[in-house]
Amino acid sequence: MTLQIHDKILLTGAAGALGQVLRERLKANCKVLRVSDLNDVGAAADREEVVQADLGDAAAVDRAVAGVNAIVHLGGYSVEGPFEPILQANIVGVYNLYEAARKHGVRRVVFASSNHVTGFYRQSDTITPAHPARPDGLYGVSKAFGEDLSRFYFERYGIETACLRIGSSFPEPRDRRMLATWLSHGDLHRLVSACLDTPVLGHAIIYGVSDNAVTWWDNSSAKHIGYRPQDSSDPFREAVYARTTPPDLSDPAAVCQGGAFVTAGPFESK
Amino acid sequence: MTLQIHDKILLTGAAGALGQVLRERLKANCKVLRVSDLNDVGAAADREEVVQADLGDAAAVDRAVAGVNAIVHLGGYSVEGPFEPILQANIVGVYNLYEAARKHGVRRVVFASSNHVTGFYRQSDTITPAHPARPDGLYGVSKAFGEDLSRFYFERYGIETACLRIGSSFPEPRDRRMLATWLSHGDLHRLVSACLDTPVLGHAIIYGVSDNAVTWWDNSSAKHIGYRPQDSSDPFREAVYARTTPPDLSDPAAVCQGGAFVTAGPFESK
Amino acid sequence: MTLQIHDKILLTGAAGALGQVLRERLKANCKVLRVSDLNDVGAAADREEVVQADLGDAAAVDRAVAGVNAIVHLGGYSVEGPFEPILQANIVGVYNLYEAARKHGVRRVVFASSNHVTGFYRQSDTITPAHPARPDGLYGVSKAFGEDLSRFYFERYGIETACLRIGSSFPEPRDRRMLATWLSHGDLHRLVSACLDTPVLGHAIIYGVSDNAVTWWDNSSAKHIGYRPQDSSDPFREAVYARTTPPDLSDPAAVCQGGAFVTAGPFESK
Amino acid sequence: MTLQIHDKILLTGAAGALGQVLRERLKANCKVLRVSDLNDVGAAADREEVVQADLGDAAAVDRAVAGVNAIVHLGGYSVEGPFEPILQANIVGVYNLYEAARKHGVRRVVFASSNHVTGFYRQSDTITPAHPARPDGLYGVSKAFGEDLSRFYFERYGIETACLRIGSSFPEPRDRRMLATWLSHGDLHRLVSACLDTPVLGHAIIYGVSDNAVTWWDNSSAKHIGYRPQDSSDPFREAVYARTTPPDLSDPAAVCQGGAFVTAGPFESK
Amino acid sequence: MTLQIHDKILLTGAAGALGQVLRERLKANCKVLRVSDLNDVGAAADREEVVQADLGDAAAVDRAVAGVNAIVHLGGYSVEGPFEPILQANIVGVYNLYEAARKHGVRRVVFASSNHVTGFYRQSDTITPAHPARPDGLYGVSKAFGEDLSRFYFERYGIETACLRIGSSFPEPRDRRMLATWLSHGDLHRLVSACLDTPVLGHAIIYGVSDNAVTWWDNSSAKHIGYRPQDSSDPFREAVYARTTPPDLSDPAAVCQGGAFVTAGPFESK
Amino acid sequence: MTLQIHDKILLTGAAGALGQVLRERLKANCKVLRVSDLNDVGAAADREEVVQADLGDAAAVDRAVAGVNAIVHLGGYSVEGPFEPILQANIVGVYNLYEAARKHGVRRVVFASSNHVTGFYRQSDTITPAHPARPDGLYGVSKAFGEDLSRFYFERYGIETACLRIGSSFPEPRDRRMLATWLSHGDLHRLVSACLDTPVLGHAIIYGVSDNAVTWWDNSSAKHIGYRPQDSSDPFREAVYARTTPPDLSDPAAVCQGGAFVTAGPFESK
Repeated sequence: MTLQIHDKILLTGAAGALGQVLRERLKANCKVLRVSDLNDVGAAADREEVVQADLGDAAAVDRAVAGVNAIVHLGGYSVEGPFEPILQANIVGVYNLYEAARKHGVRRVVFASSNHVTGFYRQSDTITPAHPARPDGLYGVSKAFGEDLSRFYFERYGIETACLRIGSSFPEPRDRRMLATWLSHGDLHRLVSACLDTPVLGHAIIYGVSDNAVTWWDNSSAKHIGYRPQDSSDPFREAVYARTTPPDLSDPAAVCQGGAFVTAGPFESK
Repeated sequence: MTLQIHDKILLTGAAGALGQVLRERLKANCKVLRVSDLNDVGAAADREEVVQADLGDAAAVDRAVAGVNAIVHLGGYSVEGPFEPILQANIVGVYNLYEAARKHGVRRVVFASSNHVTGFYRQSDTITPAHPARPDGLYGVSKAFGEDLSRFYFERYGIETACLRIGSSFPEPRDRRMLATWLSHGDLHRLVSACLDTPVLGHAIIYGVSDNAVTWWDNSSAKHIGYRPQDSSDPFREAVYARTTPPDLSDPAAVCQGGAFVTAGPFESK
Repeated sequence: MTLQIHDKILLTGAAGALGQVLRERLKANCKVLRVSDLNDVGAAADREEVVQADLGDAAAVDRAVAGVNAIVHLGGYSVEGPFEPILQANIVGVYNLYEAARKHGVRRVVFASSNHVTGFYRQSDTITPAHPARPDGLYGVSKAFGEDLSRFYFERYGIETACLRIGSSFPEPRDRRMLATWLSHGDLHRLVSACLDTPVLGHAIIYGVSDNAVTWWDNSSAKHIGYRPQDSSDPFREAVYARTTPPDLSDPAAVCQGGAFVTAGPFESK
Repeated sequence: MTLQIHDKILLTGAAGALGQVLRERLKANCKVLRVSDLNDVGAAADREEVVQADLGDAAAVDRAVAGVNAIVHLGGYSVEGPFEPILQANIVGVYNLYEAARKHGVRRVVFASSNHVTGFYRQSDTITPAHPARPDGLYGVSKAFGEDLSRFYFERYGIETACLRIGSSFPEPRDRRMLATWLSHGDLHRLVSACLDTPVLGHAIIYGVSDNAVTWWDNSSAKHIGYRPQDSSDPFREAVYARTTPPDLSDPAAVCQGGAFVTAGPFESK
Repeated sequence: MTLQIHDKILLTGAAGALGQVLRERLKANCKVLRVSDLNDVGAAADREEVVQADLGDAAAVDRAVAGVNAIVHLGGYSVEGPFEPILQANIVGVYNLYEAARKHGVRRVVFASSNHVTGFYRQSDTITPAHPARPDGLYGVSKAFGEDLSRFYFERYGIETACLRIGSSFPEPRDRRMLATWLSHGDLHRLVSACLDTPVLGHAIIYGVSDNAVTWWDNSSAKHIGYRPQDSSDPFREAVYARTTPPDLSDPAAVCQGGAFVTAGPFESK
Repeated sequence: MTLQIHDKILLTGAAGALGQVLRERLKANCKVLRVSDLNDVGAAADREEVVQADLGDAAAVDRAVAGVNAIVHLGGYSVEGPFEPILQANIVGVYNLYEAARKHGVRRVVFASSNHVTGFYRQSDTITPAHPARPDGLYGVSKAFGEDLSRFYFERYGIETACLRIGSSFPEPRDRRMLATWLSHGDLHRLVSACLDTPVLGHAIIYGVSDNAVTWWDNSSAKHIGYRPQDSSDPFREAVYARTTPPDLSDPAAVCQGGAFVTAGPFESK
């Protein structure tokens, strides 16, 4: 169920893969959707506004945030990589976003964190958001920073945030790991909507994952969000097995939750 | 599923709102239903007995309890208020009830406790019955007393009790808080039946709540009761949002689980 | 170390065994010590005030509380017994005390709770204040009520309370159970002083026990109180063993932490 | 969903009740099913191999294990009884099995453990695989040994094992206890398949139980297995109640999870 | 403090290194000390009895146990090795011992378990007896068996046992690992005495370790035993560092708590 | 006890208050102490090297790190303040440090984190390093970043780090809050030495605090470090009380562990 209870929502990262997915769907959640990205997001459609902004540019972020009621923050550097761009987008950028939210009185943020905050747990562990962070790279560390910063803004300034530790949100699961981590696009929107709609959000961490039979994450500590996935990776399982080979259990990338991220670095910065 | 495995059940508080709801339904659980209240409960229907009793009157309570196999104890003072009536109904009254149960060999009690035992938790917390009590008023404290007393009677005398921390049991949810706390009348009966039927109950605490998407309570520690809700507040959500305003997050009554109870007192006693 | 940081402290139950112990010692903690009891406490000594009060009498309790900065509440019915006197002293009485504290702006209470709140744990369990209550009688239930009520007054009105689950405070340990539960009179005063002195007390539960080798209680969740026992039952152990017989492990009174309390009831009320 | 991802699976205990159930069904999981037992298992059917083996005979076990990809180990002594046969089958036998698996490079084992590893918990407890073992007899102790041994072979040699603490796997639940412990034959196969199929199993413990309303076990720590029961004891409940009497709560066999096992011993060995 | 509260104690494994240490000291705990071993223990000294017994021989064990009040069970195979001798001594042997204790009414056993029950935890983990077993070899698995078996005999027959997960009990610490695991001979006796003396032991698990600054084990769940170590590895630290090299952190034997045991196997059995 | 087991240690932040304290003392831990700071640290003393470096300058940090065996990282921005300098010193700086450590094969880092990582807990909470971060400002968030980053470098590259959540390290406690948070200079050195000396450090978090009676922190999860404080704030308590006033419990700065930090921001960046 989608409730149109916000006048204006800012969607950052609107030019990215998930940004495009949510751009259409979030219009059901608000009267006007403001879309923003560093890259070109095209022209404003009906009930849309476009504000181009580099997250590392505080003034631009301030302009993007001014006047909205809620923020869905997908923007940022979204894979493992060199430190500089991660620093600018995911650390300076998220700081700029929260400072703008504070100044403009925005009360609720949905923040795209990542399962890579806990990527060094094994795929045979079932974990909850209360387990200590075990980031699997600079990307994961930067997402942990965002979670911590948003916690501070909640405790100090009352800005509510849901940190979504998104698994793998693709049209369908691509490999055996994604049988556990898959978040359908429909469930992604359901999850974001739940965060936008729940009466009292507080500061919450929740894994973004569909109703897959095999999973590593227990969201029972975040029942107040009211997220109910309706999709599952299970119908894809047989096909995935048919086209992939069994994991090599001596390879950390095969047994750790973070998959290939756990062996990706280091990326030398220029 | 309702099993008629008890010969005679005592229902206290039968004149109250929930008492009336259960009076009809509990007849499926027993051969004879004895209904009791301080107030007039009308004439005995088929397969009913009527015993009027003031919970504060030990002799009257003793008469009400004599000869039954199980007790569903809804009786008592059921809102926040002055200390004297709460004391008489919820402290002296529950003591009288357990003493009568002990003397007459009653083996199982379903006790209507309340979510107000833990009302000072925030609506963004997911809690379990193992979380320490944080009562939100004299009413909540009195219900915690009942839970503790019943624990003692279980450990000392073997009387099994299910403490139901009932959320909000109304025909439908009235406000945004009740989207989380709503317990349909059907689920109320299912829950009470589960407590009456489970082979071994022991001393258990369980939140009384329907299968609402947004909830604050995790009952996984009481799986042995076998309660399976079948209703949900979700179909009511859109209408509730339409007729209510967003919570003011600086108001404890808006962010604490107990809602308006947390700011209700003190009520001066005469 | 004892700090004289309170102008006037009320000591209730001053005529009781522990009341007499603390009456002398608490004068080091304040400029004036007001002593109160239902029974005669004798004439006021230097820097003392005497206010006789029945805890069940709200007006008398109000007079006893008026004008003090802090309360050490030992008053009440202190053994297992019939319900009526426990009700009056430990339930109505503690309510009267907190209402008076609220009205008169008293900010801190040291409340003599009891190990009998958790008396049904076994002597081979090591428990913390976070373990659920398992009261071993009406007395233990009444002390749990006091803990819950004080929690409410802390959350609602900011009155800080330390609930001391006192073990066995006697001049020396009398039996094998007391080797574990003994709280020397010196340590009792140290504990009360720590509660009176710590900068921020909040609402805390702590077991009142000396530094005995054998113990069942882990106070590490209450380090902020700063209690450091200096006595131990160990020097008494050999003598205690010499004059007592081994426990009968089939007797609940021998293996439960509450000792003889767990088989004491019921006491019929008149 | 059953995936045929293993070339050859060894099923031990194939002549037993559950062995016969799985013999037919596991053929969907592999190209060839090798069946083994101490007793006669009849002739090899299509896509079957037969290897008779006494678990206590290391050489025979070695032959049974040679050449398979995975093992479903149902073999052993499966009720409470004298120490010798339990020792040979469940201790020496399981050691022989893991040594053979190590030597032959078998990577995954599904081991039939038992709820009797934790049989001394009460039926009013909800427990998880992380709760300490409380075996209810020599049989339960021997199953705990198998769990520990398989843990060692996982940590030391990388052999993955799922320890299934099977409840009561019969065509239908026979008594009130089995309403909680029942594992349908279909769900048994689903559970074993899930263990055989999940990409990364690690070393996991999971209770083998259908989707019964009343249950004592919380498997949320083993979500990575992906087991989803589809049957329930609930439709049998009314009939079970009709033909059985209420439990005697003073009898450990009635209130402990292990049922009659908890009072079964000792069986004198010859 | 040592109390002579037992008439006759059986010490098994009396010919071993720790057996010889305790043989002298335990005479302070009883009137008569019965010493037993598979190997020759020499002649009986004053207040001693000698009973030679192979733990694998039930009748011999029965004779050794007959007539004692308590047992200190050091006997068994005490290092990693082939399965057969471990099976006979540590599995069959401990079963024989408990059966004899049951038949002869012995009420308390001090059982020498081992830190190798949890040897696969890392040296940077602080663990408690509630952490799941992670045995580092067949020896560790056999000790876990003894712990589980004794738990069963406690729950079923009331025989109290302390399972001592002994670290490294030598005259002084030999290497860097032993700085954490060292248990002085004096503290070994203190620990055994505490287990023999505490009024109610129940079934307890405790790590056997001196008061070393660096340690991996938290015994706060076993405070009821009353063990207070008086020695420490600290004075030996400088010398140990001087004669040893830093650990190779890529070697499991260097970083796991079990040390060299974790890479010791397999030992082929004949 | 201080062991000289490192050839060369790098001390960053050597010009700061704590840097000066450790500069003298750490010479006992190594043959050569390399001191570094952004500011002038004076000339190199005997067995010293001086390398000036701005933490935000990767090349300078690389030069400072080259050739050392271990790092004590005090450098950084050490109070709440504007984002830019915190970003440069505590985020970019700590990244530069770990990259340098990775490139040069440094195996162990002692990282000065801060109690402000958990500053929003109340002074009546006793917390452990496993409690979720609740940073009280940008400074606290930046220290949480350092903890997370070092966790990643441990899991990915094996670099061991101790994160010291230092309380208040001054010559003596200055106010009532510091009675709980005080870390004497002697204990600071003991703690750093313990981290440098322990055989296996792993990745550990520990609060840096002396043996104060009143404390909020439980370090029992980090026993493997072997830190034993020898100082205490207790002798200063009477004087501190005499010159300070009671806390205003309605002020977050008075009741939160972070003290004045929790209300310090925001600091506008230029």
